[in-house]
Amino acid sequence: MFEKITIIGIGLIGSSLIHGIRKAGLAKKIIAADIDSGVCETVKKLEIADAVMTDIRQSVVGSDLVILSIPVGAYASVGEQISPTLKAGAIVTDAGSVKQSIIDVFLPLMPDSVQFVPGHPIAGTEYSGPESGFAELFEGRWCILTPLPNTNIKAVEQVTKLWETLGSQIEIMNPKHHDLVLGITSHLPHLIAYTIVGTAEDLEDDIMSEVIKFSASGFRDFTRIASSDPVMWRDVFLNNRDAVLEILQRFTEDLTAVQRAIRRGDGQFLFDTFSRTRHIRREIIEQGQADYKAPGGVIQEGTPPVEALHTKSVRVE
Amino acid sequence: MFEKITIIGIGLIGSSLIHGIRKAGLAKKIIAADIDSGVCETVKKLEIADAVMTDIRQSVVGSDLVILSIPVGAYASVGEQISPTLKAGAIVTDAGSVKQSIIDVFLPLMPDSVQFVPGHPIAGTEYSGPESGFAELFEGRWCILTPLPNTNIKAVEQVTKLWETLGSQIEIMNPKHHDLVLGITSHLPHLIAYTIVGTAEDLEDDIMSEVIKFSASGFRDFTRIASSDPVMWRDVFLNNRDAVLEILQRFTEDLTAVQRAIRRGDGQFLFDTFSRTRHIRREIIEQGQADYKAPGGVIQEGTPPVEALHTKSVRVE
Repeated sequence: MFEKITIIGIGLIGSSLIHGIRKAGLAKKIIAADIDSGVCETVKKLEIADAVMTDIRQSVVGSDLVILSIPVGAYASVGEQISPTLKAGAIVTDAGSVKQSIIDVFLPLMPDSVQFVPGHPIAGTEYSGPESGFAELFEGRWCILTPLPNTNIKAVEQVTKLWETLGSQIEIMNPKHHDLVLGITSHLPHLIAYTIVGTAEDLEDDIMSEVIKFSASGFRDFTRIASSDPVMWRDVFLNNRDAVLEILQRFTEDLTAVQRAIRRGDGQFLFDTFSRTRHIRREIIEQGQADYKAPGGVIQEGTPPVEALHTKSVRVE
Repeated sequence: MFEKITIIGIGLIGSSLIHGIRKAGLAKKIIAADIDSGVCETVKKLEIADAVMTDIRQSVVGSDLVILSIPVGAYASVGEQISPTLKAGAIVTDAGSVKQSIIDVFLPLMPDSVQFVPGHPIAGTEYSGPESGFAELFEGRWCILTPLPNTNIKAVEQVTKLWETLGSQIEIMNPKHHDLVLGITSHLPHLIAYTIVGTAEDLEDDIMSEVIKFSASGFRDFTRIASSDPVMWRDVFLNNRDAVLEILQRFTEDLTAVQRAIRRGDGQFLFDTFSRTRHIRREIIEQGQADYKAPGGVIQEGTPPVEALHTKSVRVE
């Protein structure tokens, strides 16, 4: 499908892309690039790429497709480095969690001969780094593309084919709308998880050791989300500020209302609040977004089997 | 171990107790009681108890052990009903998520000839009702007992043996301390999950359908927690008010600091906040509280297998 693909930024997403592209035979040559020489050493040891380099500028020379899987804050620097060396006719796409600010910063840096197709795979785990990737990460997941009105339709089709081959389903969306939806489904949940785990961390040492011991009662799920990559998430919040602040404001108002009900002993308000959220879970299960995925990728429906009662490695981003 | 055990309140915990007690052969006779006649009908169909009744008062007659798995708000009513009919020498224990307010309300109702051993199994799923129970729910989980200074040590030992036979490990704790620790690890996480799902639910319909579609990016985990039993959780917050309000206040202050950093573009503050929470996840994994439990109960350590990447039925309470 491609002669040569360059992947810049070899963390969880970048290394999973390499595994997936190799497995599907989508490129004759895969180039892995990362400014971190330690990361490059690890990728070399993993023997998953045809070439590994810290020189971002050099890494894109002659490539038909360039995929950026880098923190949102790194797009300006990477864009400046690769724009002079990109092949005419090349397609550039990305996996960034925020879309509008990336388009604002990155698109003006691209030469006219290159097509940029902004993308965001809704896939991940709480693990980071090049060792954490695996080819199946994108299977059964959504990938959102946010092309601009003047983006070449052929380029969008090529990127669509790439993700579909990796097992994903494509959704086309307006970039600002993407940032609002993901602000609710992903950015706010991560912010809250980081905050609550931080609140617990500030408690006295003896209580903290018990919090860890009895974490299975709910807290544990927050610690998983709150162990995601800090640089990635810092950049998400700096670059999706308006949407996150808007939804955070609504959340804080709602939390204050619940707090008031607890202080006043308003059981009816609490019961109503806790009752109306159940159907959302049901809808998620019905849409197949919460099903148990058994070995071999078979989706198991209905009541979960006892052996499914564990906690590790739920996909998040 | 017991001639006759009565279990009052047949939801997830109550039905799991019946399954577990039957499987381990801990009682010659198991009586199931629930004020809800629909629940009793279901339990009868499941054929798991030797007798099923809506008459709480009658259900405890002649029983050596009575286990309450009822909402925290139901203890006064149940205590008044059973105190005249409890057998002299009987042990009463419970599975309530709050301990001090239960002791305050329930203990004075108990006759002197009966021993009350307050307990709380740290186990659960997001499913409710008598059909959701299974014998293995308590395997590998903690059960906290909060006996009082004058509780008969033999009664504590009997209740300890019961939970250990069901696969749990016992921790003895002061009731007020239990309520603080669980306020952090369980009550606040549930409150926040209910609130954030409610915030999303108030969004316009078209956005909500996309929130469900792309829930895999983090929101999904909150919907699972927020689908827990509303009556149980209403009662928890009404009965652990001081601890919950205290920890909620700290959380709100921390969230305001993060909000301020986002508004001001303070990347260093965000990075520091997101970095310091990672080690807590590591400690939870090291303590074996986050390990993958494979079919057959074998604990799998290290990086999760790909087949473990699913989302359903993480244990919560």
